[in-house]
Amino acid sequence: MSAARPDRPHLVVIGGGFAGLWATRALAWSPLRITLVDRSNHHLFQPLLYQVATAGLSAPDIAAPLRHILRRQRNVGIRLGEVEAIDPQARTATLADGKALHYDYLLLATGATHAYFGNEQWAQHAPGLKSLDDALELRRKLLLAFERAEACDDPAERAAWLEFAIVGGGPTGVELAGTLAEIARHTLRDQFRNINPATARVRLIEAGPRVLASFPEDLSEKARRQLEKLGVEVSTGVPVTDINAGGYRLGDTYVHSRTIVWAAGVAASPLARSLGVPLDRAGRVPVEPDLSVPGHPEIFVGGDLAAVEQADGSPVPGVAPAAKQMGRHVARAIQARLQGAPARPFRYRDFGNLATIGRMAAVVDIHGIRLSGVLAWWFWLAAHVFFLIGFRNRLVVLLNWAWAYWSYQRAARIILGREPGSARDAPPPP
Amino acid sequence: MSAARPDRPHLVVIGGGFAGLWATRALAWSPLRITLVDRSNHHLFQPLLYQVATAGLSAPDIAAPLRHILRRQRNVGIRLGEVEAIDPQARTATLADGKALHYDYLLLATGATHAYFGNEQWAQHAPGLKSLDDALELRRKLLLAFERAEACDDPAERAAWLEFAIVGGGPTGVELAGTLAEIARHTLRDQFRNINPATARVRLIEAGPRVLASFPEDLSEKARRQLEKLGVEVSTGVPVTDINAGGYRLGDTYVHSRTIVWAAGVAASPLARSLGVPLDRAGRVPVEPDLSVPGHPEIFVGGDLAAVEQADGSPVPGVAPAAKQMGRHVARAIQARLQGAPARPFRYRDFGNLATIGRMAAVVDIHGIRLSGVLAWWFWLAAHVFFLIGFRNRLVVLLNWAWAYWSYQRAARIILGREPGSARDAPPPP
Repeated sequence: MSAARPDRPHLVVIGGGFAGLWATRALAWSPLRITLVDRSNHHLFQPLLYQVATAGLSAPDIAAPLRHILRRQRNVGIRLGEVEAIDPQARTATLADGKALHYDYLLLATGATHAYFGNEQWAQHAPGLKSLDDALELRRKLLLAFERAEACDDPAERAAWLEFAIVGGGPTGVELAGTLAEIARHTLRDQFRNINPATARVRLIEAGPRVLASFPEDLSEKARRQLEKLGVEVSTGVPVTDINAGGYRLGDTYVHSRTIVWAAGVAASPLARSLGVPLDRAGRVPVEPDLSVPGHPEIFVGGDLAAVEQADGSPVPGVAPAAKQMGRHVARAIQARLQGAPARPFRYRDFGNLATIGRMAAVVDIHGIRLSGVLAWWFWLAAHVFFLIGFRNRLVVLLNWAWAYWSYQRAARIILGREPGSARDAPPPP
Repeated sequence: MSAARPDRPHLVVIGGGFAGLWATRALAWSPLRITLVDRSNHHLFQPLLYQVATAGLSAPDIAAPLRHILRRQRNVGIRLGEVEAIDPQARTATLADGKALHYDYLLLATGATHAYFGNEQWAQHAPGLKSLDDALELRRKLLLAFERAEACDDPAERAAWLEFAIVGGGPTGVELAGTLAEIARHTLRDQFRNINPATARVRLIEAGPRVLASFPEDLSEKARRQLEKLGVEVSTGVPVTDINAGGYRLGDTYVHSRTIVWAAGVAASPLARSLGVPLDRAGRVPVEPDLSVPGHPEIFVGGDLAAVEQADGSPVPGVAPAAKQMGRHVARAIQARLQGAPARPFRYRDFGNLATIGRMAAVVDIHGIRLSGVLAWWFWLAAHVFFLIGFRNRLVVLLNWAWAYWSYQRAARIILGREPGSARDAPPPP
């Protein structure tokens, strides 16, 4: 079945996110043989992941099978699996099943995961949001909290089920908090008999001085006001100092809460360690200007895993447009190298910064043009639906949004997955 | 929040499927206080469950939250939970969390599950299809089989990954086999480099003499021919005698297969046992003509759990229209009882029998009018989309179908869920 000739130089791309996929697609007409390795079978449109977690969209709306996206690109083979180690001397990437892929060029684009800053035991009580499985687990947790409160007779326990905390005031935390407040106040209205979901407290906790710190100060302030209007309690300047099964400690105060979501730290994928080069504090790879690894011109790093500086010395942000640009740059750099030409340095083109907050609320900062509120929300919606891969997804997502807008209903309010230790998990009788 | 007066008679409905939900809705204007208990938070349109398993639809397309469906019916409270026991003397239903609900009337409508006819150890190798979680698990298994074959170097092992068996030639087995053959031959075409998915063998195994035994013989024969045209190998008259991790035994022949799906037996929900009345061989409750339990006029059984005879002595089939009719009948019977009037006997109105086979292939038998092929398929599609709950679902499902029809693509081809024992399941580092 393979149309790629084995004597061609072999590029292994690890990670089918924005950087890996955009690099692969840009090399469609290259003389390379490409193997794309990912542990999921799909490319994920991560900017809308919070919508799956908050039951606005279903998983396949924001994901597309990698094999489908790349079906017409004959020089690509796809391998579902997890790379466990890279050996830069032997030029091999070893998979979890023991197989080693030999490469001539390597693009490492495995992204980032959550960082609990040394408090890894918090992870079990405050899960984060990086994959579709995370999103479905979070959806289950959020929806079950209201069910538990409804079934609960003890007022203190009920209050703990109606106490939600989102830790981290970046874009993901803001989106989750705003949408969760909308669910409690609107979507679930009239649907319970023993509780009033609108009394749920949704608290967004940011240890720094303001939410959306990557935006100008006035937009942070506008975002805060929009959040408060939606019913979110915003707490800034005080860090979370402990998280356990019963709640969390904010500064010196312990808050009883059964639902805590982690949207704070970013830690680079641990695979970077096997490159044997120095990493930055978040575990990312400080790369050369052409995105190659120091001392290894055949290895490139892209996306959230790469530590790159802009011309003004500020870091390139970990956002989807930056990852796509890096992917395309790596494709150009490899083609230059194949032709014996020098690779140009990567330059990030900043098209602006958008963040959504909730129903008809967002902030936009594009080259000094600052919008907030309804207009910003429409801009955000158009940009995000436009960049979704696949015509069908765009149509379905728009339809879902139109429906949610008019009805206040969230179509995907379906609890999936069994609860650990429940009767349904029991093995069949012998 | 509760609008229902506690002095009103209390009806407990166990199970939010077709029987339970239709009974509940029919009692909207009754003087009853109703508690609907279900272990899922959604009503499931089971006739399209195989589409979720075969990646044509996503889970929320065929499910709607019970709280949303019943949000305007003020005399209903919903309880997410599993009933573990019924005490007909004390008139209580006890939940898994230990709470007991006292009832004046009870509707038991917990449906059926898979029967392995005493070979319960087969369940782990040949899962069935009853819930959304089952469907997502099956989707994962089917899609992963092709991935495993692609990554596999050993020809024998690769062949076992491309060997699919569906046990049971009823409507579910036929639907799964036809759709899986379509996926192998069309959807996945050109998407692999080391295997040709079209070489996968999809075998439908029926121990009886023909598939779709509930249809007239000529339609069974037409269904068989349509299946074979789609690429399914149909085996009838020989039972599966063993299933293990490596394959199955068909009569005397052992077949190496990594993907076996169970669509054969039906066993009633075990909750029926706690009624203390004699059950039939499948564990169903033989009910009085008004659907009440012998000796307990205040307890009714509906849906797949009830064993009811038609006027001609044949059993009422375990299909959605029968369950809905039983639900509405129970509502009328309880209202008659509240007014001191005698309840009428249940009479099943048979509107006909439909089964889909695959792309543009189906069989229909309505009062002697027998259709097969394209026309039957359009009839099946119209009937199923029409009966889906919720305007949005219908629109999204139609859109998905139109897309699948024109593109041969199945939008939900997203593998969800972690593999037991994989690295991603490991606890975070301490």
